[in-house]
Amino acid sequence: MEKQFEEFKLQLEESGGVREKIRSVVTEIEASNRMLSSCLLSVHQSLPLSGVLEKANGHIETVKGLYVQLAEILKDCPGEFYRYHGDWRSETQTVVSLIAFLHWLETGALLMHAEAEKKLGLGSSDFGLDIEDYLTGLCFMSNEFPRYVVNRVTAGDYDCPRKVLTFLTDLHTAFRMLNLRNDFLRKKFDGMKYDLRRVEEVYYDVKIRGLASDGSAQGQANATGDQLTLP
Amino acid sequence: MEKQFEEFKLQLEESGGVREKIRSVVTEIEASNRMLSSCLLSVHQSLPLSGVLEKANGHIETVKGLYVQLAEILKDCPGEFYRYHGDWRSETQTVVSLIAFLHWLETGALLMHAEAEKKLGLGSSDFGLDIEDYLTGLCFMSNEFPRYVVNRVTAGDYDCPRKVLTFLTDLHTAFRMLNLRNDFLRKKFDGMKYDLRRVEEVYYDVKIRGLASDGSAQGQANATGDQLTLP
Amino acid sequence: MEKQFEEFKLQLEESGGVREKIRSVVTEIEASNRMLSSCLLSVHQSLPLSGVLEKANGHIETVKGLYVQLAEILKDCPGEFYRYHGDWRSETQTVVSLIAFLHWLETGALLMHAEAEKKLGLGSSDFGLDIEDYLTGLCFMSNEFPRYVVNRVTAGDYDCPRKVLTFLTDLHTAFRMLNLRNDFLRKKFDGMKYDLRRVEEVYYDVKIRGLASDGSAQGQANATGDQLTLP
Amino acid sequence: MEKQFEEFKLQLEESGGVREKIRSVVTEIEASNRMLSSCLLSVHQSLPLSGVLEKANGHIETVKGLYVQLAEILKDCPGEFYRYHGDWRSETQTVVSLIAFLHWLETGALLMHAEAEKKLGLGSSDFGLDIEDYLTGLCFMSNEFPRYVVNRVTAGDYDCPRKVLTFLTDLHTAFRMLNLRNDFLRKKFDGMKYDLRRVEEVYYDVKIRGLASDGSAQGQANATGDQLTLP
Repeated sequence: MEKQFEEFKLQLEESGGVREKIRSVVTEIEASNRMLSSCLLSVHQSLPLSGVLEKANGHIETVKGLYVQLAEILKDCPGEFYRYHGDWRSETQTVVSLIAFLHWLETGALLMHAEAEKKLGLGSSDFGLDIEDYLTGLCFMSNEFPRYVVNRVTAGDYDCPRKVLTFLTDLHTAFRMLNLRNDFLRKKFDGMKYDLRRVEEVYYDVKIRGLASDGSAQGQANATGDQLTLP
Repeated sequence: MEKQFEEFKLQLEESGGVREKIRSVVTEIEASNRMLSSCLLSVHQSLPLSGVLEKANGHIETVKGLYVQLAEILKDCPGEFYRYHGDWRSETQTVVSLIAFLHWLETGALLMHAEAEKKLGLGSSDFGLDIEDYLTGLCFMSNEFPRYVVNRVTAGDYDCPRKVLTFLTDLHTAFRMLNLRNDFLRKKFDGMKYDLRRVEEVYYDVKIRGLASDGSAQGQANATGDQLTLP
Repeated sequence: MEKQFEEFKLQLEESGGVREKIRSVVTEIEASNRMLSSCLLSVHQSLPLSGVLEKANGHIETVKGLYVQLAEILKDCPGEFYRYHGDWRSETQTVVSLIAFLHWLETGALLMHAEAEKKLGLGSSDFGLDIEDYLTGLCFMSNEFPRYVVNRVTAGDYDCPRKVLTFLTDLHTAFRMLNLRNDFLRKKFDGMKYDLRRVEEVYYDVKIRGLASDGSAQGQANATGDQLTLP
Repeated sequence: MEKQFEEFKLQLEESGGVREKIRSVVTEIEASNRMLSSCLLSVHQSLPLSGVLEKANGHIETVKGLYVQLAEILKDCPGEFYRYHGDWRSETQTVVSLIAFLHWLETGALLMHAEAEKKLGLGSSDFGLDIEDYLTGLCFMSNEFPRYVVNRVTAGDYDCPRKVLTFLTDLHTAFRMLNLRNDFLRKKFDGMKYDLRRVEEVYYDVKIRGLASDGSAQGQANATGDQLTLP
């Protein structure tokens, strides 16, 4: 009996040590996410977008380096990705929401799963971006849009609601194709319809007052080579 | 975007399908565990032990078959044991507690981890018996002893408390070697000392009344080739 | 043994006596805070601000006298500020929220930590204003702004949302510099973003209806020597 | 505003750093307490007492070294003992229960507060043993006696219940002198009467069967130069 428990002791210490290492990296990811979030939140104050994006991309490089460290730790535990996955899941959902929002600001398009993996330096090894974490991150990103649209209109960007609405509607439609069994993800997705509704209301406010531009006006705006949603 | 979500749909359906299959087997394990538990609990009523053990071993064969099915399902998901592990963890802890108690009834010794894996048809493939599940199962087994000892003494088996006490004390000592970080397991282990204390009290009752045999008397009992604690 | 417990009896009675004295002063602080809060809340009803401020400053004088009493009690327990700190912490957070809101009404600026200590008669002795209590008080103050902004707009003060938004945004940005480990404070700070978002929405409503003044209009208002946000 | 928050950032980081250092030492105290507890628990199995005590005293030396480290950390924060006190309070109550039980095993007497401080290397500086922590530790120690008495009687030491009963009765009487306002401590003290009652029952069992020695018999036992409660 004693010999068996001595072996257990070693094995529990080993997995405890892995968790310790993971926790230390995850704490750094959390801090970097806070910096990235702070940086991105300044888009609500209509600061020049280019400066925000540049700084944000710097923070993403830091996060990427940390994910590479995480993948390195997991390399010594083949087949145990999901054993420890719960230890960084929440931070991963947060960082996906942030880089997907940033990507939308830069391109007006959805950050694809493969692109998200690449931005985080993942995917080549066993350490990938779990699909449900990616989808949850997109739901969190969606929560940022109502506030963004309100602040953009306040700043005089009357075209923003239409663009966001188109994007969110497409995203919502795509999500609806999925048969979500994961309770947490389903609940977060259920919240997306409130974001959609709020954006619709802002678009309505702008439209009913004759402030929204039509397609051609937007064409012109684009022609100026300007940022997608910020003048 | 649509193409990506179509792929997600397939992947989520695939993992949903795996969970469905697992759930159906786990439901059967749960039912078999209930049968096995019912059967084992009859030792509290001092029925002839041989009959109880024979029936119990039959149920274990059924459970083993089900674990083999589970391992078969997981074969198609290499490296994802821990992804789905939570789906059968609780039943595994229960079955370990039952087969470990049965093993003690048969041999008076602790069912080792490797023996438990063998009894459940596991260990050859990626699908093993998680150490923490095994240890949690042993804690659950410990909870059965206070009641068992009381009923054995009632049935006139005054030597049982001493034997159980020795076994539980050794098990408790072995557990104390471990530095348990898992909160659930630590809590369950903390409960073991109440079992120990209760068994000590029964042993005390028997001893103070001069009912407990000393070592030599037990030597004779063993010489008759009888079951360790059951006549 | 007895002699030791007799000494304990004396020491416990002594610290019990200190707590009794503290409790009696804290009960008075609680009552004064309620009066101050009642008084300040009348700004939501657009009563003349000067009367409100005068009455409120009277209540603050009362609270200040009570904090001086508290500091006096603690003078006899050098090095034990934090032993009893939990007994008045909650009231201190409340009073900071009230005097910081009052200060904003008077000046449009943040009540600094040193100013808050001075208003409460603290800081000269060992008895200071704990930084985390001060910060928590600021979070509570933030909770008052959404309601205030709504009521000011109702009363026709269309310039108020912009001013509050600028102030809250700066405060939120300053808080984000901090790496908050205190769970209670972090949670309260997390709530500040909902206040910010609500104020943004009110500013949006005012702006989209063309009711918000631009910078020059506000310049005029200031030129009249009027209160920052109250006519 | 920014300058003030930058100062806060520094101060919060400083106190966060102190807490980090404390936590790391407290984790080690926790581990040492587990070792000490394991070691002391073997008295329930009637192992030779001298060996147990020797090993236990070794563990106490380790704990003492850790408390000296803790006191060292706090030296840089004069007057802030109670600010961080909650971070090690629980471990201190545990270690007091263990060293007080050990002391009783060695001497049959209560470990006094000053002796406890000395054993933990405390008391010379600002870092002392809080009286309420000491008293709570004694309540925890009391919880160990019912089990101890049961196991001693089982091992044939019929004189132990009387000695424990005398000790616990004196301790309970001494506690009753105190006017306990601390809810946690009062609750723990309320539990002591159940320990007392259980020990009384064991003493009754021994007495009614004519197994308890009277005073003179105990005199003889002591004359053999034997350990106080263990043959």
